[in-house]
Amino acid sequence: MRIFIIKANHAHTKADFSLKDLPGTSGRIDLLCRSINSAFLLSHGFRKNVRVWLNLNGPPNPPKTIRFEGSEIRPKTINPDERSIAKLIIKALKAGERIKDPSKEHQVLPGIHISNLTFEDIIRKTLKTAKLYYLHEEGKPIAEVNFKGNIAFILGDHVGLSDEDEAFLENIAEKISIGRKSYLTSHVIAYVNIFLDNLGI
Amino acid sequence: MRIFIIKANHAHTKADFSLKDLPGTSGRIDLLCRSINSAFLLSHGFRKNVRVWLNLNGPPNPPKTIRFEGSEIRPKTINPDERSIAKLIIKALKAGERIKDPSKEHQVLPGIHISNLTFEDIIRKTLKTAKLYYLHEEGKPIAEVNFKGNIAFILGDHVGLSDEDEAFLENIAEKISIGRKSYLTSHVIAYVNIFLDNLGI
Repeated sequence: MRIFIIKANHAHTKADFSLKDLPGTSGRIDLLCRSINSAFLLSHGFRKNVRVWLNLNGPPNPPKTIRFEGSEIRPKTINPDERSIAKLIIKALKAGERIKDPSKEHQVLPGIHISNLTFEDIIRKTLKTAKLYYLHEEGKPIAEVNFKGNIAFILGDHVGLSDEDEAFLENIAEKISIGRKSYLTSHVIAYVNIFLDNLGI
Repeated sequence: MRIFIIKANHAHTKADFSLKDLPGTSGRIDLLCRSINSAFLLSHGFRKNVRVWLNLNGPPNPPKTIRFEGSEIRPKTINPDERSIAKLIIKALKAGERIKDPSKEHQVLPGIHISNLTFEDIIRKTLKTAKLYYLHEEGKPIAEVNFKGNIAFILGDHVGLSDEDEAFLENIAEKISIGRKSYLTSHVIAYVNIFLDNLGI
């Protein structure tokens, strides 16, 4: 299984933004929509072996975390365009407004769950069953990594992870790189998926 | 220089579609928007060494062709989100309504040009200065290709190229592949860009 964990520093935690201007009003939920597209979609196909954690830390009620579970998501739930994926995120955030529990997940649609889990919570949960990699331009080249079993990739948004996040990940996640340039999160996910396909894993 | 030529079979050739439903009303201009994002954008950066030809062949006045010239496009013209890129395409299509000449390009914005050029016209123009590759899952693995000079990649949309297009390209473009699966056009472009970055070309 492939797991992508995306920490979104400013993504709004309430559906108080406009679909007409996602970059300007939502704390860059457009970036998360393209990341979902890259994680799950093939040409006329869907990757069931993928899980995505979107960890939203913007105003007004951080954190909110949405888990997309490829094996449970029904066909045609995830369409390729940003706007329709943004509508799924809005649906999840609306369901999340009522949640008080710090750890319990609530199902929004089959395979889509919302919670108050923190970035650290997600990492600790994932550690139990997968090897963690933090994607960073200064990491070890991905071609030199020996991938086995469940693989989890941690990615930042346009701002990137904080020094505190990086300190937390220090002995937990191996820093790996797909190249020396700094790429858009959605491009990194597309590249990693195709790279792993070619390894046959 | 890297050149991406995308043949969009059904993409509308007039701005008669809705930004609220690009996949359903525009003949999949959403796909072209994500392709522009993948072709040009880096995290906090822009690829000036890229040219993209969008060849639109949908109703009502096919073909319309939009050329995006990375070296001429001004900063902040291309934003990452689909909606703002769709607005650039709308602007180009509106400017294109008046065009009668079959070959002359008209500038819409610095680095963005509209014309009535056909797919074959674009290929013939590009052949003069670049080596052509047709991206197809059954092609030769990209890792075995010896890239040199200007490189042009031909890609289909969700429908793919027709038998006639493939026959036309037979002795003109080498068929190469980034993997055996069929990937979204925008993912292929993201992968190819990162792959070429890593070759240092």
